[in-house]
Amino acid sequence: MKKSTTLRSDIAWSTPDKVVVKGFDLPKTLLGHINFGDMAFLEIMDRLPSPAESVMFNALLVSLVEHGITPSALATRLTIMGAPESLQGAVAAGLLGLGNVFVGTIEGSAKMLQEALADQPLTHDLDQTATQLVEQHIQNHRNIPGIGHPIHKPVDPRSERLFDLAQSTGYEGPYVGLMKRVAERASERLGKTLPVNVTGAIGAIASEMGIGWTVCRGLGVMARAVGLVGHILEEGRQPLAPQLWLNTEKEATLHLTDGDAGSTDSPQDR
Amino acid sequence: MKKSTTLRSDIAWSTPDKVVVKGFDLPKTLLGHINFGDMAFLEIMDRLPSPAESVMFNALLVSLVEHGITPSALATRLTIMGAPESLQGAVAAGLLGLGNVFVGTIEGSAKMLQEALADQPLTHDLDQTATQLVEQHIQNHRNIPGIGHPIHKPVDPRSERLFDLAQSTGYEGPYVGLMKRVAERASERLGKTLPVNVTGAIGAIASEMGIGWTVCRGLGVMARAVGLVGHILEEGRQPLAPQLWLNTEKEATLHLTDGDAGSTDSPQDR
Amino acid sequence: MKKSTTLRSDIAWSTPDKVVVKGFDLPKTLLGHINFGDMAFLEIMDRLPSPAESVMFNALLVSLVEHGITPSALATRLTIMGAPESLQGAVAAGLLGLGNVFVGTIEGSAKMLQEALADQPLTHDLDQTATQLVEQHIQNHRNIPGIGHPIHKPVDPRSERLFDLAQSTGYEGPYVGLMKRVAERASERLGKTLPVNVTGAIGAIASEMGIGWTVCRGLGVMARAVGLVGHILEEGRQPLAPQLWLNTEKEATLHLTDGDAGSTDSPQDR
Amino acid sequence: MKKSTTLRSDIAWSTPDKVVVKGFDLPKTLLGHINFGDMAFLEIMDRLPSPAESVMFNALLVSLVEHGITPSALATRLTIMGAPESLQGAVAAGLLGLGNVFVGTIEGSAKMLQEALADQPLTHDLDQTATQLVEQHIQNHRNIPGIGHPIHKPVDPRSERLFDLAQSTGYEGPYVGLMKRVAERASERLGKTLPVNVTGAIGAIASEMGIGWTVCRGLGVMARAVGLVGHILEEGRQPLAPQLWLNTEKEATLHLTDGDAGSTDSPQDR
Repeated sequence: MKKSTTLRSDIAWSTPDKVVVKGFDLPKTLLGHINFGDMAFLEIMDRLPSPAESVMFNALLVSLVEHGITPSALATRLTIMGAPESLQGAVAAGLLGLGNVFVGTIEGSAKMLQEALADQPLTHDLDQTATQLVEQHIQNHRNIPGIGHPIHKPVDPRSERLFDLAQSTGYEGPYVGLMKRVAERASERLGKTLPVNVTGAIGAIASEMGIGWTVCRGLGVMARAVGLVGHILEEGRQPLAPQLWLNTEKEATLHLTDGDAGSTDSPQDR
Repeated sequence: MKKSTTLRSDIAWSTPDKVVVKGFDLPKTLLGHINFGDMAFLEIMDRLPSPAESVMFNALLVSLVEHGITPSALATRLTIMGAPESLQGAVAAGLLGLGNVFVGTIEGSAKMLQEALADQPLTHDLDQTATQLVEQHIQNHRNIPGIGHPIHKPVDPRSERLFDLAQSTGYEGPYVGLMKRVAERASERLGKTLPVNVTGAIGAIASEMGIGWTVCRGLGVMARAVGLVGHILEEGRQPLAPQLWLNTEKEATLHLTDGDAGSTDSPQDR
Repeated sequence: MKKSTTLRSDIAWSTPDKVVVKGFDLPKTLLGHINFGDMAFLEIMDRLPSPAESVMFNALLVSLVEHGITPSALATRLTIMGAPESLQGAVAAGLLGLGNVFVGTIEGSAKMLQEALADQPLTHDLDQTATQLVEQHIQNHRNIPGIGHPIHKPVDPRSERLFDLAQSTGYEGPYVGLMKRVAERASERLGKTLPVNVTGAIGAIASEMGIGWTVCRGLGVMARAVGLVGHILEEGRQPLAPQLWLNTEKEATLHLTDGDAGSTDSPQDR
Repeated sequence: MKKSTTLRSDIAWSTPDKVVVKGFDLPKTLLGHINFGDMAFLEIMDRLPSPAESVMFNALLVSLVEHGITPSALATRLTIMGAPESLQGAVAAGLLGLGNVFVGTIEGSAKMLQEALADQPLTHDLDQTATQLVEQHIQNHRNIPGIGHPIHKPVDPRSERLFDLAQSTGYEGPYVGLMKRVAERASERLGKTLPVNVTGAIGAIASEMGIGWTVCRGLGVMARAVGLVGHILEEGRQPLAPQLWLNTEKEATLHLTDGDAGSTDSPQDR
């Protein structure tokens, strides 16, 4: 059978005494020399990070690993309860919620910044561009991505720290500048305290590092996979899902009275 | 490149004017002639059901479609909240919880019955076999699959109905007989009301129909995929996940006070 | 803790002697009385189908169950190979590919038809509307959803049969009429044989039945869950994934010579 | 409504100016101070790694990220082809294959070693224990986990490097010693070159680090999530899935001749 096109992948290959990933000898050049975040950088950027890139990129990933009791973490915990044989399935269930809404503002802020500065980023008048962006979003009745937080006021401590790191690693450029100005203009214009939140900081710094906005979702998925394993381990020690399920079933379902639910300890016979 | 083995699938093939599935001409023989449950039967059994098989098998699937607010339904609803672009992802998240615990007692009761009657099912003394099974489970400190229910007492109305259908369709054989006797012996022996529950009825009737216990999980997955789409539609009209998330975050997380959570309406900036 | 909003689901509830789904007594009214496709209809439409609706809706689902060796079926088969303990995970993996591309033309044709006839469907001049739709798509360099097929020419036998059923069940209305006219105009205009394919037929008939285009993806997911269980069973009897993997690894990876791959029979030590 | 049990999670909490994860102030103590692998260590071990632990643990994760064209990578690539809107779904599909077979030998070697040395690891005669393990596996006709490789002979360069790192970081203890001896005895006994492969090295070193064998699957899932994002990016630049699908459909399906398949460029109308 003649094949019209050749299948081809260049990510990794091996010979009896060699394993090569993205052009690097894995045992000799990578193992013991780079950390897990650097390896993630290599997968995304097809090159190893500089020391400054390594610090900054690892910090972005670390900031995304764990956000506590999220819908994602709850989905993972409810899933491992029914299918304890499949840790991979429970992580997968949690990752499936990392879609347009969840990662929306990282993607959204990166996209807003990258489109606004698509052409010669350094020549823009950032104040003017920020004002335009804020007005456009207000006129179109759209939320401005990456600003505001229900708890963290007047500043999001994670954004502050990430921006400090951006300064010390040399990534405080026009995207970060624009993001900060957007938050300031929006706060003035809307009369509210709207700090750059962690998703805006990540979107801006990822833009500085040359990471396209469509790839930002990948950062969230990588990092959250790590955090969801942590939730599975806590669920094993200190289960939350069975009670969450029974409480919710009882509260949400008409005609179920106190004596009905809550008296079983396993989902299997329902 | 010489291939050592040929790839081969015989499920479906087409020519310009024909589409054949499992040996049947799909447009001519199947579409409009069989129902969705019959098609599921064909996928599992490689033949079309008799009229009696069709009634019984469809009833098994219908009984599995919808169990209300299950951990699976909650995982689906929490997932669509974060990733509304991916209905398929939300269904997948819910299906991932249909593992050893959830479908454990369907698989478990089918396995118990099929192993007990592995050899010449019709020659067994069912009373004696039932007594042995109950004693074995008690001695090994294991739950007896397929009996008992926290709400449905003294009988599970679904089991009763499925057993009536089994009688009228000719599937009231030794597996059903053994399952009923196991419930009776266990109730006597443990001094509790332990009716055959819906999972036990399905396990027994599937055994009568020649469905191996390892395939029973597939019935649950097929049926629940249908039900989870229903939950996604209700979640769209009458969302439950956002409030469930906020309530759970507030209740489960120390140091979060009333003013902290609950004041945002989107998961995106957390 | 005061809750600002009540969690609420009305899909199902139970009392000791009753299980109610979508307002129907499951054991008494549904089990043994309706088939699996009718139950799917109930989940989507919140009512039971009429006899004509039952025939037509079941046929739509049956037509979607099995399309042979699709990317989805391959993903399921490759997944069960690595995780045989989790049938639910392998089905979930296959469903995850049922996204914008795969179900695009069902959604797309339903959307095109529902938007074109949004206002008083019966008053439209279907010939004129069809011509407009074809011209719009050509001008915007967009494919017209629901027409053309690489194998099935000059007609797709599934569409023909579904349209015959639509006629006999009373669902041959303006949406079906418009879909057929779109195919005719496009064939004339582009000088190719472009029959209504099965996705166009499903999109048109679903529109006749009052199923919104956003729900069409749900039909595909429900039906394909059934088909993927069939692929898992065939993979168990007649495995295709191990050879597919080894062939692909060898073909796609530079520096791997014939002696390298292909000599292992398990993925576990790679 | 009185709740019988309190829901509780201690992984993360926030106040207006603080975000705390596993007891650490995320912005002040973690961001910019630890790398992504250290964060994974924190999620699993509930404490930060020592410098030696950091090097060793990061190396384990890095070794697991990328194994080229695996069944998992193929599932991810086939999934993104049908659902390009859902990167998270394509990663999830790939992770779902990381089950008993795929991660079997990491879990299996860690379990074998941890059970063999469950009691006072340092007092065992490792030669004798190794001989016993090999004989037990041979008698029970079971493969010995963690040894042998189809390509990497006479040594797996990744194992060699990981063991060198174990020595320099102080993790060359009884588990590593036992794993090496098992490989030697098995090679002698079976007359084949059976080096410790990368899964055996990871299983042994994870055991030295105090990581329970049931948690090992989590390491694979975390690491592979990173690698699968890399495959999605390569699939975007250099698609492999469409051709893989068409080739497989044509090869696997009877009655399809050369003219039938291969002439479409999208899965949507099949």
